[in-house]
Amino acid sequence: IGDVSKIATDDYVGFTFFVGSMAMMAASAFFFLSLNQFDKKWRTSVLVSGLITFIAAVHYFYMRDYWDQVGESPTFFRYVDWVLTVPLMCVEFFLILRVAGAKVGLMWKLIFWSVVMLVTGYFGEAIAIGNPTMQWVWGLISGIAYFVIVYIVWFGEAKKLAETAGGAVLKAHKVLCWFVLVGWAIYPLGYILGTEGGLFGLQLVSDIDAAQMSMNVVYNIGDAVNKIGFGLVVYAAAVASQTKVEA
Amino acid sequence: IGDVSKIATDDYVGFTFFVGSMAMMAASAFFFLSLNQFDKKWRTSVLVSGLITFIAAVHYFYMRDYWDQVGESPTFFRYVDWVLTVPLMCVEFFLILRVAGAKVGLMWKLIFWSVVMLVTGYFGEAIAIGNPTMQWVWGLISGIAYFVIVYIVWFGEAKKLAETAGGAVLKAHKVLCWFVLVGWAIYPLGYILGTEGGLFGLQLVSDIDAAQMSMNVVYNIGDAVNKIGFGLVVYAAAVASQTKVEA
Ligand SMILES: CC1=C(/C=C/C(C)=C/C=C/C(C)=C/C=O)C(C)(C)CCC1
Ligand SMILES: CC1=C(/C=C/C(C)=C/C=C/C(C)=C/C=O)C(C)(C)CCC1
Repeated sequence: IGDVSKIATDDYVGFTFFVGSMAMMAASAFFFLSLNQFDKKWRTSVLVSGLITFIAAVHYFYMRDYWDQVGESPTFFRYVDWVLTVPLMCVEFFLILRVAGAKVGLMWKLIFWSVVMLVTGYFGEAIAIGNPTMQWVWGLISGIAYFVIVYIVWFGEAKKLAETAGGAVLKAHKVLCWFVLVGWAIYPLGYILGTEGGLFGLQLVSDIDAAQMSMNVVYNIGDAVNKIGFGLVVYAAAVASQTKVEA
Repeated sequence: IGDVSKIATDDYVGFTFFVGSMAMMAASAFFFLSLNQFDKKWRTSVLVSGLITFIAAVHYFYMRDYWDQVGESPTFFRYVDWVLTVPLMCVEFFLILRVAGAKVGLMWKLIFWSVVMLVTGYFGEAIAIGNPTMQWVWGLISGIAYFVIVYIVWFGEAKKLAETAGGAVLKAHKVLCWFVLVGWAIYPLGYILGTEGGLFGLQLVSDIDAAQMSMNVVYNIGDAVNKIGFGLVVYAAAVASQTKVEA
């Protein structure tokens, strides 16, 4: 660390940045160092789990120090992380469904929609500030892209492949679907929380500082659940499918 | 590091932060680099030992620099570490008992009580400052949760499983039980030491600066014993159970 400033005991944003960075770091070490125990079919999936937490770890150390020194945590930084980790999660969906014959096209489709979701979300959250109508429009487009992803994994192509695969893959896919529906929903919630004047007529927290604060705590907890949890589901599937083969 | 300030020869807190960070770092390298010699059954346990010291290592480097620059070491930071490493120790108890058929439920039970212990402890130590009654109440709840953990590992479910497993597992479990009872007791002692005006009518050190000082030295020594020692016990069990199989 370079300079540090005094930290307050009730600085929950700072606290969750700290715990988050350590947790992401430990998770990365866990995924990376367990690679050896898996055979080729599963190794890439576990490796990608590790990449997601590793990107987050390094980024969280930065965001933690930024928060410590500047006392803010601009949304800007969140998108730096998402723009890499969300497409990697799409890759993950593809990788575990590959055994059931998933085509690379599925991966690109998911990645495409995730990029649309994030780019339009960024326009709404960072560029259209002070223009509630445009924030509304961008947020809506982003939400539609999010919905397309939910549809593909819950009911579309991905769902069918998971059913073909069965066993550990189907189980993992089901859990990951819930991550996308419930875990990811935290982020649009943060968008609504953090948008001045609210969004869609919703204004959950009226004080903008308190809104930013709660948004950051929620994002930090959400990130830990979504990234580490997501990775652990893949890890568990890998373990389950290997022990069955060996037995 | 960015800036450093001159260190005093009798700065025992600084000295133990230094030694602590190096020791944790070395222990992590030791656990991680020895993974290859273990088979799957034990590898995850040794890996988790490494994660515990790894989190501590990175965190100790931070606390060391913070101490150097700010001249304090708020309790806040201790909890950043504990909130991750104590649940990981609960995972460790589960992992070594898995051979005897431990259910994941046992792990979640231990994690649950450890989180209760830490959250209520934090309220007492950081939020309820200046309100001795509430500090007393939170400390008591935390203590009860601690007692539940001690009970489970010493006499409850965990104990029974260890007896079923026998051999290296039973031996390791016994030692780990002592860690929980004696090693972990250092932390509530620090709580009493560091609480202004004392706790439960106990006031071990009356000068609050001296109390903070001694608390930090005690925590640093305690951490090294609990984290590295705990990991080494698991490591030894892994070695013992493998040599028996090989012989
Ligand atoms: C729908 C929607 C959004 C969705 C964001 C999501 C779903 C982000 C997911 C991030 C993950 C999973 C991170 C890594 O763990 C935005 C962009 C906030 C803008 C408002 C509308
Ligand atoms: C009972 C009790 C506590 C117990 C803390 C413990 C038992 C911490 C263990 C930490 C470990 C094992 C760290 C890693 O090595 C608190 C929270 C101080 C609050 C006062 C009551």
